Amino acid sequence: MGLFPKDINFFELLDNASVNCIDAANNLVKLFENLDEIEQRANKIHELERNGDLISHEIFRSLNKIFITPIDREDIFALTSKLDDILDMIWGCADHVRLFKIKTTINGIFDMITLLQRNVDTINKAIHNLRLKKYSYVQELCIEINRLENDADKLFKGVLGELFETETNAIMIIKWKEVLEYLETAANRCEDVANVLETIIMKNA
Amino acid sequence: MGLFPKDINFFELLDNASVNCIDAANNLVKLFENLDEIEQRANKIHELERNGDLISHEIFRSLNKIFITPIDREDIFALTSKLDDILDMIWGCADHVRLFKIKTTINGIFDMITLLQRNVDTINKAIHNLRLKKYSYVQELCIEINRLENDADKLFKGVLGELFETETNAIMIIKWKEVLEYLETAANRCEDVANVLETIIMKNA
Amino acid sequence: MGLFPKDINFFELLDNASVNCIDAANNLVKLFENLDEIEQRANKIHELERNGDLISHEIFRSLNKIFITPIDREDIFALTSKLDDILDMIWGCADHVRLFKIKTTINGIFDMITLLQRNVDTINKAIHNLRLKKYSYVQELCIEINRLENDADKLFKGVLGELFETETNAIMIIKWKEVLEYLETAANRCEDVANVLETIIMKNA
Repeated sequence: MGLFPKDINFFELLDNASVNCIDAANNLVKLFENLDEIEQRANKIHELERNGDLISHEIFRSLNKIFITPIDREDIFALTSKLDDILDMIWGCADHVRLFKIKTTINGIFDMITLLQRNVDTINKAIHNLRLKKYSYVQELCIEINRLENDADKLFKGVLGELFETETNAIMIIKWKEVLEYLETAANRCEDVANVLETIIMKNA
Repeated sequence: MGLFPKDINFFELLDNASVNCIDAANNLVKLFENLDEIEQRANKIHELERNGDLISHEIFRSLNKIFITPIDREDIFALTSKLDDILDMIWGCADHVRLFKIKTTINGIFDMITLLQRNVDTINKAIHNLRLKKYSYVQELCIEINRLENDADKLFKGVLGELFETETNAIMIIKWKEVLEYLETAANRCEDVANVLETIIMKNA
Repeated sequence: MGLFPKDINFFELLDNASVNCIDAANNLVKLFENLDEIEQRANKIHELERNGDLISHEIFRSLNKIFITPIDREDIFALTSKLDDILDMIWGCADHVRLFKIKTTINGIFDMITLLQRNVDTINKAIHNLRLKKYSYVQELCIEINRLENDADKLFKGVLGELFETETNAIMIIKWKEVLEYLETAANRCEDVANVLETIIMKNA
């Protein structure tokens, strides 16, 4: 058990966690493009979700083992948790498409995932630049994440509103409402990541 | 960056946040009274929600800038977050009434909002008296908040139970269940505020 | 107000909280076995839920009163909150069966509760052995809790999937989906307890 985090690179681990989210979001596009191969597509995302759990676990274990961390312990904890939440939401979305045996997409679903992809990409960039101490650039990226979350929220409400206007089968509404809510919550967790990043910047700037 | 919170009046900011919740609850009554003017009514509450975000942001920024706070840092943080949650729930309720194009009210909805109004009023009074260090009075107000939450919970279940007994359209049930849940969660967040206030009192009494 | 927790036995209180969860889970079996006596059965669980609130309250009050705790203050807080969450979920399940006037069970519901019973039993055993500082045994029990949560998650999805495949009444789907989600969330909170226990072990081992 060492005093200094020589051997534990938290930035590297956080980068891994965010890359894992990017992978999962990319695979979610493929899942909706290939709903007839739902089993393989969902399993692939499940794999990434379990991989994310391993990364989180390694970070938490390391936090408990060392005394000095490059950024505040509770901020590393929060970043890790929120990144894991994003991944869980992507997995929840995929898993419920499979569970509900959804066979066709609806208007706006790909736009929602595209926004999510841009959001996790921006998060990855922000973590990278946090490591480089480019705080004012990280700040800009946080504003971008918030903007993307805002767009995602508007889009979600548009898609949900259209669902309730056009779908007459209540069971289909239940299914899609749940699937869409996973995507909406993923966007909210991206915003949470931005909030933690802003706290870190404020402490260090 | 100063050591002492001379220029930052946390009590003033928390008071603003609670007044904002009162405004939003009052506007929610008007929204349900004028469902044919839903756009303006929802927009008004959205304005208040954004105003609340600005207040929260100012409190969080101040917390990161000063070393000494009149009450424990984490308690100010928790109070702010929970007050913001109440506001978000009121906004969520309003926004979904609009989104779901709800045109008529149901039994009990005004009673639920009346309880919420009384709850946020009591919270405002408690924050005011916390500042005056009238701890035993704040304690009484916390008990009142808990009682109101209890009433709100019973009322919510009554309204939800009646909805499931009388409404035969599953889609209408989905819509109203969601709208009611926002109000119920708002009441729960009021109780959370009371819990934080009790923690503060225990530390200071 | 004393420095040392002579008179406050946190382990005893945490044990009480976990025994209360066991009681509630046992009563949930009886509730589903006697749906025609739903009022008495739900009231019994409500009583346990209120008892749990008293235990939590006593722990929180004690935490605010003493300076030295046998395990980290925030870990006692987290354990207490999560145990209370488990109880709330059991109560939420029971309460909604009553509210929704559910008259018949569905396939898999008893299996889900059996898993929950095993999970809260294991948690009780873990808390007991934490007190005895048998950390490696507690670690084994945590792995068992995680395994049980995993099983519960798979079972939940199986039951939910079957519900959507066989039930054609959307309102029944809404009702059962909610009831099942309470059980699923209870299992997740059990996993949260295991995570807190693992953190405690890491700090003390």
